Amino acid sequence: MTERINKRWRLAAYPEGMVDESAFQYMEAPVLPPGDGQVLVKVIWLSVDPYVRGRMSPVKSYVEPMKVGQTIAGQSVGQVLESRHPRFDKGDLVLGFTGWQSYAVMPGEELEKVALRALKASYALGVLGMPGLTAYFGLLEVGKAREGETVLVSGAAGAVGSTAGQIAKIKGCMVVGVAGSDEKARWLTEGLGFDAAVNYKAHPDLREALGAACPNGVDVYFDNVGGTVSDAAIGLINQKARIVVCGQIAHYNAKNPPRGPRILATLLVNRARAEGFIVYDFQQRFPTAMVELQRWMAEGRLKARETIIEGIENAPKAFLGLFEGANTGKLLVKVGEME
Amino acid sequence: MTERINKRWRLAAYPEGMVDESAFQYMEAPVLPPGDGQVLVKVIWLSVDPYVRGRMSPVKSYVEPMKVGQTIAGQSVGQVLESRHPRFDKGDLVLGFTGWQSYAVMPGEELEKVALRALKASYALGVLGMPGLTAYFGLLEVGKAREGETVLVSGAAGAVGSTAGQIAKIKGCMVVGVAGSDEKARWLTEGLGFDAAVNYKAHPDLREALGAACPNGVDVYFDNVGGTVSDAAIGLINQKARIVVCGQIAHYNAKNPPRGPRILATLLVNRARAEGFIVYDFQQRFPTAMVELQRWMAEGRLKARETIIEGIENAPKAFLGLFEGANTGKLLVKVGEME
Repeated sequence: MTERINKRWRLAAYPEGMVDESAFQYMEAPVLPPGDGQVLVKVIWLSVDPYVRGRMSPVKSYVEPMKVGQTIAGQSVGQVLESRHPRFDKGDLVLGFTGWQSYAVMPGEELEKVALRALKASYALGVLGMPGLTAYFGLLEVGKAREGETVLVSGAAGAVGSTAGQIAKIKGCMVVGVAGSDEKARWLTEGLGFDAAVNYKAHPDLREALGAACPNGVDVYFDNVGGTVSDAAIGLINQKARIVVCGQIAHYNAKNPPRGPRILATLLVNRARAEGFIVYDFQQRFPTAMVELQRWMAEGRLKARETIIEGIENAPKAFLGLFEGANTGKLLVKVGEME
Repeated sequence: MTERINKRWRLAAYPEGMVDESAFQYMEAPVLPPGDGQVLVKVIWLSVDPYVRGRMSPVKSYVEPMKVGQTIAGQSVGQVLESRHPRFDKGDLVLGFTGWQSYAVMPGEELEKVALRALKASYALGVLGMPGLTAYFGLLEVGKAREGETVLVSGAAGAVGSTAGQIAKIKGCMVVGVAGSDEKARWLTEGLGFDAAVNYKAHPDLREALGAACPNGVDVYFDNVGGTVSDAAIGLINQKARIVVCGQIAHYNAKNPPRGPRILATLLVNRARAEGFIVYDFQQRFPTAMVELQRWMAEGRLKARETIIEGIENAPKAFLGLFEGANTGKLLVKVGEME
């Protein structure tokens, strides 16, 4: 066996404002053997997610910031090449926070087996993984979406948004998506069964466009983006509406605290609620949710799309594309082939 | 008996921007006798409340807007002079939405008896009325304040704020108030037992001042005011914080939708919640709350203060004073004497 070379990306410096390639430093080094209790994983699929921008900042949030020099954070699906942990065998498919690299030596405790026999392994990073669970708990637990209500989803063509909208349809809601191109909007209505979709770039008066798409107002606003899309959406909320604050990608690269219309008075006169959450708040209920998500997929009621970028070398480029809306559905980097 | 003259204030025109006396029109007319099922009430105490500004606008909110020509909305405590309703007798003290006038003929169904033997009748408009219940449910149900948490209250020297802060103390919270003068701040700490109070007008860097007063951050922000006070407060929230949106007096006179720092990203990274409510959302539980409020008053743990303006003629002046922070505690107009 030839020596394996690990290719990884580490944080070169905390970016200020819009992140660019200078934040990432590429490194190569020989792969080391696993120690006792450790597992050597070959990364197959790497998940590239907007929340990583938040960790590329020295400001503390609900997760620790990355440190300069650290491997860029990321979850992936990989294959066990060598195991010194009793729970894993060579060849197992595993899920773990390996970071942006092609091989990872991980403590066995930080890995879990991927058991999706009939389905694609990469779904463990998308519709049957963190994004799918985020959509599920955000919509149903934070948003308390109920049959007959209008659910408006921003970032609706992304991994979380597209799943949230489909779950809302399954639950009998009227669902409207906001996305960044006509093609994405068409996918939402024709491909996923959304009742309507609005390309926010095509409407100078977005509030009017969303108002026309939501004739009964908005009961649940599932927000992945923030910014002016949210301004328009929040202007349409009904009495007792819920704003699910799932992502704010419009602001992740902001240098200064962004300003916009104040919303507390809107919450007050509508007796409405806005709530931020992270999916791990619901960790104990992941198994139940997963059963439902898998069933809906098996029934063809929940569909997943992936945008795939080839090669770990292109991970930064893939990541930067998130902020330009380059992806439809789950954004993945294909890092390696199964052996 | 000489003819009784009703003095009333009606809406002259919808004010634009800051309300002034031109919005109010004074009228006198003979008092009419009650019809079948009606009650003639002599108004003794009139409650003057910020929410009335919201109703002086043609924009629909959770309540119907007032119409031009209509008597200005207000709740009062009065005395029954004549009853043609079986539930009321002459001399009874009653509570009802009589509006800003000295006599009112009301359907008996819209009145309730005031039964506060040992206490002042005016408390039915304050600590043992809508403001007290608003504080109670806002803090405990919307805010879910728990022992050991830090509760920050804006508009803390007002009727709702002063009660919310005292209930938080009773529940074992660390309580900090924000008010508009040193004298009010002193009353909060020395008179009501708040742990700290900040005169927002005395601090150019309010966030720093509030940060010093809340060394453990803010778990519940009970907001009566909005604006820059809220900006500073929201900058200090902890993980899983609750923002109770009870009032936004800083914005009630705004001509244009006010702008300020966006808060959705703050809610997201803190997994926090902001929620508007009105007290009537909890109407079915008023009796239970009232028992607790009365007990705390009897035990001396809950104190009430009133600012009293004499004469229905001065009701508009009293109302305008609300927006300048002229009142400490509950603002009342003393309209008439008991007969």
